[in-house]
Amino acid sequence: MILQTRATDRPSPPIRPEPARRLNPLERGLVLRLLTGFGNPPVKLILWNGEELCASAEPIAAVVRVPDRPSLLRMFVDPYRFFGDAYADGHVDLTGDLVQLLERIYRSSGDAAPNPRRWLRRNRNTVSGSRKNIHHHYDIGTSFYRLWLDSQLTYTCAYFPDESTGLEDAQIAKMDHVCRKLRLRPGERVVEAGCGWGSLALHMARRYGVKVQAWNISTDQVSHARQRAREEGLEDRVEFIQDDYRNIAGSFDVFVSVGMLEHVGTENYRSFGGIISRCLTSAGRGLIHTIGRHRPMDFNKWMDSRVFPGAMIPSLSEMMQVFEPNNLAVLDVENLRLHYALTLRHWLTRFEAAADTIAEMFDDRFVRMWRLYLAGSMAAFTTGWTQLYQVVFNRFTDNQVPLTRAHLYREP
Amino acid sequence: MILQTRATDRPSPPIRPEPARRLNPLERGLVLRLLTGFGNPPVKLILWNGEELCASAEPIAAVVRVPDRPSLLRMFVDPYRFFGDAYADGHVDLTGDLVQLLERIYRSSGDAAPNPRRWLRRNRNTVSGSRKNIHHHYDIGTSFYRLWLDSQLTYTCAYFPDESTGLEDAQIAKMDHVCRKLRLRPGERVVEAGCGWGSLALHMARRYGVKVQAWNISTDQVSHARQRAREEGLEDRVEFIQDDYRNIAGSFDVFVSVGMLEHVGTENYRSFGGIISRCLTSAGRGLIHTIGRHRPMDFNKWMDSRVFPGAMIPSLSEMMQVFEPNNLAVLDVENLRLHYALTLRHWLTRFEAAADTIAEMFDDRFVRMWRLYLAGSMAAFTTGWTQLYQVVFNRFTDNQVPLTRAHLYREP
Repeated sequence: MILQTRATDRPSPPIRPEPARRLNPLERGLVLRLLTGFGNPPVKLILWNGEELCASAEPIAAVVRVPDRPSLLRMFVDPYRFFGDAYADGHVDLTGDLVQLLERIYRSSGDAAPNPRRWLRRNRNTVSGSRKNIHHHYDIGTSFYRLWLDSQLTYTCAYFPDESTGLEDAQIAKMDHVCRKLRLRPGERVVEAGCGWGSLALHMARRYGVKVQAWNISTDQVSHARQRAREEGLEDRVEFIQDDYRNIAGSFDVFVSVGMLEHVGTENYRSFGGIISRCLTSAGRGLIHTIGRHRPMDFNKWMDSRVFPGAMIPSLSEMMQVFEPNNLAVLDVENLRLHYALTLRHWLTRFEAAADTIAEMFDDRFVRMWRLYLAGSMAAFTTGWTQLYQVVFNRFTDNQVPLTRAHLYREP
Repeated sequence: MILQTRATDRPSPPIRPEPARRLNPLERGLVLRLLTGFGNPPVKLILWNGEELCASAEPIAAVVRVPDRPSLLRMFVDPYRFFGDAYADGHVDLTGDLVQLLERIYRSSGDAAPNPRRWLRRNRNTVSGSRKNIHHHYDIGTSFYRLWLDSQLTYTCAYFPDESTGLEDAQIAKMDHVCRKLRLRPGERVVEAGCGWGSLALHMARRYGVKVQAWNISTDQVSHARQRAREEGLEDRVEFIQDDYRNIAGSFDVFVSVGMLEHVGTENYRSFGGIISRCLTSAGRGLIHTIGRHRPMDFNKWMDSRVFPGAMIPSLSEMMQVFEPNNLAVLDVENLRLHYALTLRHWLTRFEAAADTIAEMFDDRFVRMWRLYLAGSMAAFTTGWTQLYQVVFNRFTDNQVPLTRAHLYREP
């Protein structure tokens, strides 16, 4: 329920009868122009007065009902939020597959790239803001995530040695891929920023014999992770700290962060890199795994207001602000975009299989909202609107690096 | 000889007798402060009046004679050019290895990083400026380069599967590594920007069966490359075009550029990327291999004025201006810094073995200048002051990419 109503959001407007005045030519023209700006998606709008509007010559894949004139205005001011909320509210009827529709929309808006200018940001990632933002998404009950994530609750892009790899194996392969890139040696000290439910921290300690300090501000996740450490008898090797990454201190051989940079905010990249640099030994190395963009772009506003408040996904040039001002050198960047599309296909399939249970836990609106988030994310990865970067780095002066990357691909 | 005298350079000042006035305390303080700013290198200055200055407590590794007061002033205005020219002019006496001395200087100036601000640039890379800049370095006689490069005259970083690989094999391994990253298929059309003496273009055609159009503005290099294509009977598959990369047109499956971005200039990156984007098919892909920095930094002024006029080596954030504004997505970045240190060790060894011959071809000053350039480059790579990036990219919408990089490391 927490995802539905936030203090700062207006409830979606009820459908109320209005005089059936038709749009005048100017209004009609503006609506069609907006649709054209999105590349003429195969979508038909049905207005409160029964009027129908469509800019596409292709077969219609979605009908969107616009309940009243204020909604039409909102569509202009903020089309992403309008369509997102319309879907969640049940005002959208689909004739086909949601992922395919969204892919068509993404592809057709190819050259009409969203404006790269940053709008005034809500949900800023101050220390208290981050806590609120993280709580909003991650603290809605581990039992919900258990319904559609893998058994270890790894809520980040998996790694598929081939397409037929199952989700469980692909999540383990991802963790091993990360650990190999980090060249973990038994006894080393690792700090992890943003550890989710603890799967990577526990994996590193269990399989690579390192000591891990894992940071996270999500209360649900940390308590679950501690429970798992106790059950596995790994408490002496994995310490879960419920605190903000900004408070990380001490000295470590390895820094790792998988799927947290999205919550840091570009304005904090330089200081984030400063924290990494201060805590790494002279031969220390690190890895950041994050969703990214091929060019600087706004985060989808519907996602920012409903799903991931405060999230921001960087292009590589933006991401370099973590490293360059802090004398960290990039050793390796791998783009795993298509792996996230595969991961999301697994999640979406599991999510749909559990939809009735989820509707009972929350309600139908919640199910639709999360379906749209997962399907939209999958479409964004298949169409290239989002990327997945794994970046390995060290101090620019350190020469203790393997000559080639062949060791990543040798049988263990 | 062409490297010694350029119209815009003053000839190095002759040593002429001057009144033996000692530096006053202010002057002395300024000199010592300059040395401290460079991290107190183990260098002693001997002035025209016999006075000795040293800021280091370590054993002295180099003695630099300052022939007159104007030279002292020049040392303040432009220390890199002062030391570079002093070495070339024979005013520097070394007690040890040049590479090790330069490594010590690079390492000791660790936190005293050069100012990232760009100074007013000379030798700009306009179409005519580029021709002049390239001519200055590459058109001084292929017979010279033949003395110390590999047999195929590959004048870029090699790839060493292990440290003991010889230079010849490592250059072939580099070309294969590039070709594998590009996933060349027989019959595909490849455009190469900046092809040197043609080794990669010929290798791609010979071993991978592609058709290559290779661009270069160096007259010596192109005529040598054409000769080789004729000798090998590859003229129908490799076309060498003596023209500026800005005139590349047509449609290609693959774009490749190895060691040319250094001559493009950051101000031209966006338009360079535009050229790439226009000439690539929808499933086209490309690779740029370039010397880089871990953070934005000025190019060494001595190198700019004496060795590589107009050269500029980018940080990754700067390099992203090639890709991001042109809707190209980065798939893979590999940092091969230590491979360039190994390559330079080979080149330097061969260069030293041929030093007498080279002195006869040119003169002693030329030999010292090139020794400093090669040794300084090697020291810059071993200490991390320069990096080597190979960046693979495609259109952000293209999904025809292998899931993993394992194919790069399989036995052929």
